[in-house]
Amino acid sequence: MEAASANGEGARELTSDRQPIGRCRCLGPAPPRVGLAPPPGSRRCPRGRAGQPRAGEPGSYKAAGPAPLLLLLLLLLLLLLPAAMLRLLLLLPLLGAAGALPSPLRRRRSASLPVGPYLTRYLSQQIDHFGFDENRTFQQRYLVADQNWKKDNGPILFYTGNEGDITWFCNNTDSKHLNYLTSEQALADFAVLVEYLKMTIAGARHSPVIAIGGSYGGMLAAWFRMKYPHVVVGALAASAPIWQFGDLVPCGTFFSIVTNDFKKSGAGCSESIRNSWDAINHLSSTDAGLQWLSNTFHLCSPLKNLQDAAVLKNWLSETWVNLAMVNYPYKADFLQPLPAWPIQEVCKFLKDPSLSEKLLLQNVFQAVNLYYNYTGEAPCLDVSQTATKSLGEMGWYYQACTEMVMPLCTDGVHDMFEPQKWDFDALSEECYRMWGVRPRLSWILSMYGGKNISSHSNIIFSNGGLDPWSAGGVTQNITNSLVAVVIPDGAHHLDLRSRNPLDPKSVQQARALEIGLMKQWIEKARHSH
Amino acid sequence: MEAASANGEGARELTSDRQPIGRCRCLGPAPPRVGLAPPPGSRRCPRGRAGQPRAGEPGSYKAAGPAPLLLLLLLLLLLLLPAAMLRLLLLLPLLGAAGALPSPLRRRRSASLPVGPYLTRYLSQQIDHFGFDENRTFQQRYLVADQNWKKDNGPILFYTGNEGDITWFCNNTDSKHLNYLTSEQALADFAVLVEYLKMTIAGARHSPVIAIGGSYGGMLAAWFRMKYPHVVVGALAASAPIWQFGDLVPCGTFFSIVTNDFKKSGAGCSESIRNSWDAINHLSSTDAGLQWLSNTFHLCSPLKNLQDAAVLKNWLSETWVNLAMVNYPYKADFLQPLPAWPIQEVCKFLKDPSLSEKLLLQNVFQAVNLYYNYTGEAPCLDVSQTATKSLGEMGWYYQACTEMVMPLCTDGVHDMFEPQKWDFDALSEECYRMWGVRPRLSWILSMYGGKNISSHSNIIFSNGGLDPWSAGGVTQNITNSLVAVVIPDGAHHLDLRSRNPLDPKSVQQARALEIGLMKQWIEKARHSH
Repeated sequence: MEAASANGEGARELTSDRQPIGRCRCLGPAPPRVGLAPPPGSRRCPRGRAGQPRAGEPGSYKAAGPAPLLLLLLLLLLLLLPAAMLRLLLLLPLLGAAGALPSPLRRRRSASLPVGPYLTRYLSQQIDHFGFDENRTFQQRYLVADQNWKKDNGPILFYTGNEGDITWFCNNTDSKHLNYLTSEQALADFAVLVEYLKMTIAGARHSPVIAIGGSYGGMLAAWFRMKYPHVVVGALAASAPIWQFGDLVPCGTFFSIVTNDFKKSGAGCSESIRNSWDAINHLSSTDAGLQWLSNTFHLCSPLKNLQDAAVLKNWLSETWVNLAMVNYPYKADFLQPLPAWPIQEVCKFLKDPSLSEKLLLQNVFQAVNLYYNYTGEAPCLDVSQTATKSLGEMGWYYQACTEMVMPLCTDGVHDMFEPQKWDFDALSEECYRMWGVRPRLSWILSMYGGKNISSHSNIIFSNGGLDPWSAGGVTQNITNSLVAVVIPDGAHHLDLRSRNPLDPKSVQQARALEIGLMKQWIEKARHSH
Repeated sequence: MEAASANGEGARELTSDRQPIGRCRCLGPAPPRVGLAPPPGSRRCPRGRAGQPRAGEPGSYKAAGPAPLLLLLLLLLLLLLPAAMLRLLLLLPLLGAAGALPSPLRRRRSASLPVGPYLTRYLSQQIDHFGFDENRTFQQRYLVADQNWKKDNGPILFYTGNEGDITWFCNNTDSKHLNYLTSEQALADFAVLVEYLKMTIAGARHSPVIAIGGSYGGMLAAWFRMKYPHVVVGALAASAPIWQFGDLVPCGTFFSIVTNDFKKSGAGCSESIRNSWDAINHLSSTDAGLQWLSNTFHLCSPLKNLQDAAVLKNWLSETWVNLAMVNYPYKADFLQPLPAWPIQEVCKFLKDPSLSEKLLLQNVFQAVNLYYNYTGEAPCLDVSQTATKSLGEMGWYYQACTEMVMPLCTDGVHDMFEPQKWDFDALSEECYRMWGVRPRLSWILSMYGGKNISSHSNIIFSNGGLDPWSAGGVTQNITNSLVAVVIPDGAHHLDLRSRNPLDPKSVQQARALEIGLMKQWIEKARHSH
């Protein structure tokens, strides 16, 4: 159970951290307040032959809370997956398919950055592991928390990061650089990094390493174990939608789970949202209606036309999806500061779907205002952030335009959203327009096996029953060592968050199971030496 | 046992075929005498956006001999591995390290091309699977032999090709194109191809597929199973030196095996060869000696200086290595037409190591003449072919300069060669000079796990005790399903050759074991459906 605590603690640090890295091919400033300067040259994309790895200077801070048995090697990201996973939805609005599909999350950029109990270090990594023309390297940042690590080959938990905010993508929109932003390169980075650490950290030579990640990072953790089983003895893949590809799962399940979350959280709630779209459509057909919508939703920029109204609808859709992902049982500050069970709070405003359109939409405003302005500090609500502005947020766009093609759709019947078909061709055109690349629909299936993964071992797939991403997750055991853990009361990777007195029993049991399995892997790895 | 026959037959066709493909990124003419024209445009590297896959027209020829139960999907190469594996040695002479290390094999280009019992087809493949900037495709040629395939999801044997002769590398020395000549791209090609075939060949949807390959192709077969276990249910990796990397095995074992082959094949034999180097060195110190050597070895171009003498020594070393690889128990025509147990024949000329240097070298000439001129048709012997002339032969050079860095060395004590240390830095410099690339010594270990592969399954590693490449092979069982098969009397992947009345019992037993295991994999795959 100590290990569980370790995991929980580690996850907490992760969720509260705001320093992305992922497969950022060139790094920016070191985490604020950590007091460590990045190595010289690490703020720019390498232009010439790369230098040798430079280790960051160790900081002097210490772990604040009770710390677990294990060493956490953390590849931290500004956002954990919930936010990041959503980014793949961004493309759909861009395709002109205004309506049900959400626009990107807003991050609270002003959030203060806690000092984590870790050291920040850098490793010189090949920009391209799979080709030799590009021999330059980049400084991959990684974080080490070894306060509680048993130095005699104690186990190591390797957090596999996320797509996160790659603001520091050197402000370089040249897709020649993005060309190396792939899951395969990221896994190769991980493999090289773990092997380097085991060789260079005294006492780590024979440490069993377990990959841990959530959402996209959970997919990376699972795939890391699948492709590099010689590097990690197992993986905990939390809320990893590894089957949200091709035709492995119905494209509509994601949004029907969102809808169910609202349906269960208050009578009339999902119906109110379903009815809101027509109300918006009707009002946005006149200038007076657009003005009324702008005032009612306290928008920072007034709506001027139907296109703006579509942006409003995307933004609302995204809000409902976000709420489903962060529908945690306690007050939390993950994407936004929110009360416990935020959907229940939101649904208190949405009890009567039969109200007139203006009264209905005033209630919808109250609902979203709870999400965006729980602290009461926002002077207005800004729907324009749905159009991604920073390259940082573009990273996932690019991945969704290349490998990470996740079919999603709505029908307005099994979900509360405006109907929108999955349209690969439109996606492909938009991707080509934006990046000059075409998505490859089936590649990820060829690469990682789709549902045919039974020959692998030692992977835990955990999913929350409230989490829309569970639609593409592994929710049934595949073999004795490919284990599904379902947390009926859980939202997006609740199990990776730190322990909380309000945790439902299901997540406590899930964590206990996860830790038990991880201990088995470690034990078995010990004996094979 | 029918399957064994199938395997043997398939291998025979392979060994006698002369059509390379491997990871040729752009294809040339279709196999001669097959009567199938390649698809338009397939003779050139793609310059613009690629077209859609074009299937080749099926031919009308039929299988000639008795054909097996299984469908053979053959990615054929001009040479099987023995010749090809040797190419990695070429770099050492290029590094100025004249002496013990052999130069490349000569292929008998005039050899007639048998019509194989297969159809030639093409599949449009991504030039770069791991990046999206390069969206062009190339037409990958593949061969299908389905005469004896059970159409109701009968098993499929997938021959994983080799590095072979990539003459059709579009005569393009631009390493921008070679950048995609990697094992990872080849495996991705295989995965996409197999999945495409299973989807498009009627009755193959649920066919279990087994990867089979020898030498470099054997490594590809093993790695294919490791990285894409959802695509192939198992792999037969014949004479695959997957451990000839890093410091996994001593660099000298390869040449000590060659030496032992000669030692066992005749008294005085290996000593004669060991003594020959000093004799050559002494004679090549004078113009008269060089002239004498040129005459004695019937060289097409006379030796002019010490550098030429070094080329002669490389060429001799290579010959001894080649003989060790093709030391088959029956008359064969693999690299060269040769008698049964050719080393025994060669050693008949090399009985007395104490002869004077000129008499000794006259005997050495008789020995190599048996290899190069067994048919008596060669007007002279051409050592200059050790310097690779065709780009086709350069493909393996490039791979040896990037991923396939196989340390080899000699000491003149445990082997009969002139001492030559393994010199990575010199290799790196030469690679940079030739291609602008640097080899990455440890990458292949990070990628494929080195000796830490026990979590994989269903791979047979077969090795011949006479084969120098067994030095880097897996010769002991790793787990119940990672099985080593050693064939004490076998040279380079003898088990993949067609059955022969002179086959030693050990290879018969090896084939029976291999077939038994493959049947188990197939059976298990059937039950998992």
